[in-house]
Amino acid sequence: MKEKVRIGFLGLGGRGQGLLKLILNMADVEVPAVCDLYDDRIKAGINIVSEARDYTPTGYSDYRQLLKREDIDAVIIATSWQTHGRITAAAMRAGKYAAFEVGGASSVEECWELVRAYEETGIWCMMLENCCYGELELALLNMIKQGLFGELIHCQGAYGHDLRGEITGGIENRHYRFRNFQHRNGELYPTHELGPICNMLNINRGNRLLTLTAMSTKSRGLHEYALKNKPEYANVDWAQGDVTTTMIKCAHGETILLKHDCSLPRSYSREIWVQGTNGIAVELGDKIVIQGRSPEGGWMEFEWEALSKYIEEFRHPLWTWFREAGVKGGHGGMDYLVQRAFIESVKEGKLPPIDVYDSATWMSITCLTEQSIYMGSMPVAVPDFTNGMWIDRRPDPKCRYSLDAVHNDLF
Amino acid sequence: MKEKVRIGFLGLGGRGQGLLKLILNMADVEVPAVCDLYDDRIKAGINIVSEARDYTPTGYSDYRQLLKREDIDAVIIATSWQTHGRITAAAMRAGKYAAFEVGGASSVEECWELVRAYEETGIWCMMLENCCYGELELALLNMIKQGLFGELIHCQGAYGHDLRGEITGGIENRHYRFRNFQHRNGELYPTHELGPICNMLNINRGNRLLTLTAMSTKSRGLHEYALKNKPEYANVDWAQGDVTTTMIKCAHGETILLKHDCSLPRSYSREIWVQGTNGIAVELGDKIVIQGRSPEGGWMEFEWEALSKYIEEFRHPLWTWFREAGVKGGHGGMDYLVQRAFIESVKEGKLPPIDVYDSATWMSITCLTEQSIYMGSMPVAVPDFTNGMWIDRRPDPKCRYSLDAVHNDLF
Repeated sequence: MKEKVRIGFLGLGGRGQGLLKLILNMADVEVPAVCDLYDDRIKAGINIVSEARDYTPTGYSDYRQLLKREDIDAVIIATSWQTHGRITAAAMRAGKYAAFEVGGASSVEECWELVRAYEETGIWCMMLENCCYGELELALLNMIKQGLFGELIHCQGAYGHDLRGEITGGIENRHYRFRNFQHRNGELYPTHELGPICNMLNINRGNRLLTLTAMSTKSRGLHEYALKNKPEYANVDWAQGDVTTTMIKCAHGETILLKHDCSLPRSYSREIWVQGTNGIAVELGDKIVIQGRSPEGGWMEFEWEALSKYIEEFRHPLWTWFREAGVKGGHGGMDYLVQRAFIESVKEGKLPPIDVYDSATWMSITCLTEQSIYMGSMPVAVPDFTNGMWIDRRPDPKCRYSLDAVHNDLF
Repeated sequence: MKEKVRIGFLGLGGRGQGLLKLILNMADVEVPAVCDLYDDRIKAGINIVSEARDYTPTGYSDYRQLLKREDIDAVIIATSWQTHGRITAAAMRAGKYAAFEVGGASSVEECWELVRAYEETGIWCMMLENCCYGELELALLNMIKQGLFGELIHCQGAYGHDLRGEITGGIENRHYRFRNFQHRNGELYPTHELGPICNMLNINRGNRLLTLTAMSTKSRGLHEYALKNKPEYANVDWAQGDVTTTMIKCAHGETILLKHDCSLPRSYSREIWVQGTNGIAVELGDKIVIQGRSPEGGWMEFEWEALSKYIEEFRHPLWTWFREAGVKGGHGGMDYLVQRAFIESVKEGKLPPIDVYDSATWMSITCLTEQSIYMGSMPVAVPDFTNGMWIDRRPDPKCRYSLDAVHNDLF
């Protein structure tokens, strides 16, 4: 086991700088190299490291130069949706374990290239899907593994986040969301809800995503917002529909419903919804019914209880540890947990809890929904990125920082 | 205007008997004829009328005999899903205005036959979609017409009702649900949520449903329930998936998401969801955000408010009248209101608020979702039952008992 992990950090926009600060709180992490396309961001990255450590990291504007360094074990990639896939593959081929921020794929080929890079080199990558480590999501996973929901039948989730200000502010912030919403129309950001749901449904581990069909509404929200608040973008023709809905069918007959909803006024929710033969949990509205526990009677058959009560009772062991340890981090602790899972996997030389097959599968939904929408909601097949290995794949041994503790109970 | 309406009542199962009692509370309604396939139900119907009036109605086992009576103005049909369409068409062709209980169509042809019967005879029919008269649904319609949501973008609804006991009890209760769930797989019961949503989106009145795609989960809930509670049905092969999800695209770019969820433990909800460029309302969880009214700020952009507060503030005029009048009736008053709309339309000799085109459109979703599911979630076109008239169709004049009061403000 490595005592220290030496990280190259690529992509120093707002998210990247936040993550960089977070990992510098870990005493076993060093960051000798940072990289971005823009000089001001490189300087910002160098300053963040210099303030936290007694050395000055090297700044790079070309990621290929950074990847040539032999003193680096792994990289964290927080670049744009269009570039993080290719940089991740290049990192693996350069022998660096790679963690990359969330985002959908531009093509199915981009996902296959991640798989090939891993299978050809043995060097893995991990999508930093922080919501897999959410307190709610892990408590639900715990409840599922304990059998409270019976056999799972249907799951839902959404990325319900009013990003009108952020999207239309994208050009001046050099953020990729503006161009993506301008030119694409699909489930652009599926992984925050799909990742946790795939963990619940054992996707790529005895189950898999088979087909999907998707539908987008008209696009009105960004234009209306720009008219009032960003008149310089009043003539932008936004391709992205305001609400995109996706239905996915799984090999064992479950369905997954996803919604992408970022251009209309609302309050945030991932709208997680879990439903099985013995119960149902609904995040938005804090509701649950578990047969045998929840009050019964009347024409409604059951009375809703508060999901939040169950989250406390069935808190995942990882979160019990996390709360007792008093660690903190962005997005309610999820950012710490997912980064820590990555660092631990590098240190211990074992496969990460979110692997290349998970990452490729989750990312692929974006370009597949675009295809479905462009063809009038035609069903589209989801590739089996494991090439048949999903039938026999089992989770890795238990690990305090991984999701394996719960996967493992299954088999 | 007629002073009295003379009704023939067909279909005297549980729902039929309830509706019969309800309309007998109306002093301007007479029921000289009742009809059912079963003798015990005919007797029950005769008794219900005899107890409420000073005459004994004639009982029929053949609806064609009842339809021959010349002293009947209209019929109410609460027969099975498989028969109510053909009986409705026969009633129109016999010169009787026809109200029929909700349920999906078995074929698109069944829907066209309703349209033809109306267009050839001038005698109309009306689906008794009580949820169009729900307090929540009408308040939302009122808010939509007052512009609170801006331009509508996306709506959702569900029939989320744990009916495992009712469905598996269907054979002994002579209820059609058992056989439908045994043999079909689709959105079997769309109208409770789709009806109100179509009113909100002006479907068949300047907008229309274009295409849909549907997906069903595996079927587990009824089998598991039967194993424990109805062992005599443990070997039934239920075709209906536990959860069926449907996405519909509208002519003006809106999407509608429907869910049919009757075979798993849960508490009841129609899960109405309305989303526009200025706001969002979510029934399950009692949540709303209206831009310009709801508190703003923070990374979630808006804070949820309680939808129930808005329901009070924006109560529909029909419901204000209804509450002041102190009338009652099944399902929180909706049953009274929808029956009353039918009776008033017959009395006043005008078209009903829910007409044959609405009825045909809403019913057709059931067989169209079956087609989509059987073809692997292929998109399926929704017929234009108005044959192009939707482009120019406008609502009828305001009527206290109809939905027109709100439709009318549109144009």
